[in-house]
Amino acid sequence: MFEIAELGHTIAKADYHKQVPTLRTQLLTVQQTLSQLDFSVIILISGVDGGGKGDVINLLNEWLDPRFMRTNAYDSPSDEERERPKFWRFWRTMPAKGTIGIYVGSWYSEPIAQHVHAKIDATKLQTQLIHIKELEQELADDGTLIIKCWLHLKQEQQKKRLKQLEKNPETAWQVTKRDKEHLKMYDSFVNTAENVLQETSTSQNPWLIVEGSDIRYSSLTVGQHILDKINAHIHARQLAANTPPPQPIARTLHGNQPILLDALDLSLELDKKQYNEQLNHYQGKLNKLARHAHQKKISSVLVFEGWDAGGKGGAIRRLTHAIDARSYQVIPIAAPTDEEQRQHYLWRFWRHMPRAGRVTIYDRSWYGRVLVERVEGFAQEHEWQRAYPEIRNFEEALTDHGIVLVKFWLHIDKEEQLRRFKEREQISYKQHKITEEDYRNREKWDDYALAVNDMVARTSTQSALWTLVEANNKRYARIKVLKTYCDKLEQQLDH
Amino acid sequence: MFEIAELGHTIAKADYHKQVPTLRTQLLTVQQTLSQLDFSVIILISGVDGGGKGDVINLLNEWLDPRFMRTNAYDSPSDEERERPKFWRFWRTMPAKGTIGIYVGSWYSEPIAQHVHAKIDATKLQTQLIHIKELEQELADDGTLIIKCWLHLKQEQQKKRLKQLEKNPETAWQVTKRDKEHLKMYDSFVNTAENVLQETSTSQNPWLIVEGSDIRYSSLTVGQHILDKINAHIHARQLAANTPPPQPIARTLHGNQPILLDALDLSLELDKKQYNEQLNHYQGKLNKLARHAHQKKISSVLVFEGWDAGGKGGAIRRLTHAIDARSYQVIPIAAPTDEEQRQHYLWRFWRHMPRAGRVTIYDRSWYGRVLVERVEGFAQEHEWQRAYPEIRNFEEALTDHGIVLVKFWLHIDKEEQLRRFKEREQISYKQHKITEEDYRNREKWDDYALAVNDMVARTSTQSALWTLVEANNKRYARIKVLKTYCDKLEQQLDH
Repeated sequence: MFEIAELGHTIAKADYHKQVPTLRTQLLTVQQTLSQLDFSVIILISGVDGGGKGDVINLLNEWLDPRFMRTNAYDSPSDEERERPKFWRFWRTMPAKGTIGIYVGSWYSEPIAQHVHAKIDATKLQTQLIHIKELEQELADDGTLIIKCWLHLKQEQQKKRLKQLEKNPETAWQVTKRDKEHLKMYDSFVNTAENVLQETSTSQNPWLIVEGSDIRYSSLTVGQHILDKINAHIHARQLAANTPPPQPIARTLHGNQPILLDALDLSLELDKKQYNEQLNHYQGKLNKLARHAHQKKISSVLVFEGWDAGGKGGAIRRLTHAIDARSYQVIPIAAPTDEEQRQHYLWRFWRHMPRAGRVTIYDRSWYGRVLVERVEGFAQEHEWQRAYPEIRNFEEALTDHGIVLVKFWLHIDKEEQLRRFKEREQISYKQHKITEEDYRNREKWDDYALAVNDMVARTSTQSALWTLVEANNKRYARIKVLKTYCDKLEQQLDH
Repeated sequence: MFEIAELGHTIAKADYHKQVPTLRTQLLTVQQTLSQLDFSVIILISGVDGGGKGDVINLLNEWLDPRFMRTNAYDSPSDEERERPKFWRFWRTMPAKGTIGIYVGSWYSEPIAQHVHAKIDATKLQTQLIHIKELEQELADDGTLIIKCWLHLKQEQQKKRLKQLEKNPETAWQVTKRDKEHLKMYDSFVNTAENVLQETSTSQNPWLIVEGSDIRYSSLTVGQHILDKINAHIHARQLAANTPPPQPIARTLHGNQPILLDALDLSLELDKKQYNEQLNHYQGKLNKLARHAHQKKISSVLVFEGWDAGGKGGAIRRLTHAIDARSYQVIPIAAPTDEEQRQHYLWRFWRHMPRAGRVTIYDRSWYGRVLVERVEGFAQEHEWQRAYPEIRNFEEALTDHGIVLVKFWLHIDKEEQLRRFKEREQISYKQHKITEEDYRNREKWDDYALAVNDMVARTSTQSALWTLVEANNKRYARIKVLKTYCDKLEQQLDH
């Protein structure tokens, strides 16, 4: 597939200088338009060493309006990055909607390098490519335009280029030892790259292969490609806005189907004595396990979902009580800030990923997408339908990284909820927790029940099972939460 | 000063349980009020080991509404933190206005520990305390309420507490080797702490010393103190809102004073040949220096200020052209996002501090506070007057950390500006850079000139000198910028 980039494309200096001003004007104009729209652009500049990636990126930096773009370099990850799932470093610097992010090095760099250096085999490479395609698909589904450019050189050209750079004392530094090693591995590198590019050139996110021997040719080609892609994307989105949204990918359960939650035995309870004994026992146990996990740098992500007044807060407090205050964060999920609003909906959860050995507790979570956003119509059907596989992938990234992931649904029945609402209205320091909205949500109980049912059915995977907690009795629920987390931690520690 | 906390204060269980519900209600109510106001609250919980810091923090986490508060633990810094000036880690987690940040460990932890372990002498400790007081003063000036609590124990009590914890297998882990070492150093620790607390108990930001032997007493006392302080602060701000703003701290230059900028020789120029030669020379030189600095992990912060159409963008591009695209970031300063708006005005610049060996280029900067915000009245006089020392402290923090700081003012005269405006209107890819606003700003030329003059006069310190660039001739200006940065880098590298 690289033959097309070995034909010796060049552009004469005069032609180049004639074309650049027009291209720059058009790029600036399209950036202006983009800045008002609700999607972002990610530009990956990859390729062989000596292919002129640096030159192209420097030119793009000159041509584009810096207010709406940013270059992100991903070389070796920092300790904060290594301690989180592998895509975290890309999420943390994701361009906001209306802006462009140019990526020097990207999620492709490591898989390619690892395979060339025989650190991973073909199967592992394929697995990584699947994760990459999923990530790109999810970004694209959110409207993100991903432009992928590969700068190619023939082996002789690469040799020549590196020699040229080396000869000139002012550029010799650009040729590193690694480059020379890569030169020896040209064939192996190009073979791996070809495989990766073929595998990841999807119709939605294709690669552009550009001959890199002439910087005028390559920079103009890349610049023009970026311009065309953004224009086409704007056009396609305008068209889409005028057509009905796509049909849902899968049907959800309906009305008369049995509901998973109905099977829960809500009469389960503990008396005060049992509770106090077990609370002491499990808090002590958790304390030791949490400390052990901290030492072993095993992180946890806990998700608390449940009915309003289901007892999330109380359960969380009984749990955090046993953990060193320095190692956990409770993240209550409220309305997104405007920086969060200009990102993919998962971005604001990536933001709070715990460092190694720490615990993040989400009080409500990404499941809002398939619960409140679905029921209240904040997300369109194709958006929340898409969220099930997105969430499965997201959680897989966490568990693959060795994070202990525990998800709780605190279940109470409708009568118990009403009783607790009334009770809250009586207790001064609980009054703030009860609003008109709680009563409004209550009226949609059945819609929520259906949504919960779908959620549990479609996001309980082997490594990310839901724990349904019978919570009519607070004591029983708190102990079950504590015990479940203890068990999961113990499992992971024995691993 | 610790005698007051050695009297054996306790609270009976029954009293405690009677008082807590009222306190919780009041805390929640005040948090509700706070969430609508434009200041933040920082609560430092410090003290001797075994003084119950963890218990108090856990209780505060239970009592307070997690939506408006967050606990930040500062133990050993990550590599990303070590690579930035020492207060960066506190700035990155600064609570937004309307919220509370509880700090476990704080800017006090390291100075105290270092002095106790004889790693710094009394003079160095004093210097650090001065920096801390400046930081607290600046936050307070911005409206932030800082509540500082110190949990004290007598030596016998500390011994007893640690023994108790150690005897119980479920709490033994809490007693670390470090704790036992500290026990031996009780006197030294308490003496240093006493010194630090006295020195940093200002009328605005005083310490509360609390006896830590009885958790019921200490947590109620801390909780009540927090409540009182927030209420008093809200009250004081309401009063202040009804009184005229304070008089400016110092007078600025007026009308007929000679203006520093007038002394610049704007006829300085380079012809095309000279320019091309020197551009090549300095870009080559910068390239090597920048690479060298990258290896030695020396970071740079470059500030570009100047008249509209002064040529900032062109100068920045000539400079970045010589630097590896992976190691610099250009940060164009535009209107703050809402997350930025809910922070101290310096927060959004701290955000972009470069990692070790990297370069951050600010296209406009924190000087907006004393330029556009002053002239256009976006900041009140006492705010921009205060900004001069604040900026000096901020920049001192950068240079103390070893960052190469270079500040450019690109100076052109009024006629040249008009010529460039007209020219921009003719060139298609420059039209976006010229708006009505530019002409409006132009009308306030004299006000801006005065503000620039004050800025240069009051923020040119030994380690953070302004470089005034004669920029009527773009070629001359670009070379001067390149040369200046080269010189500064060279100086630092020879250091």
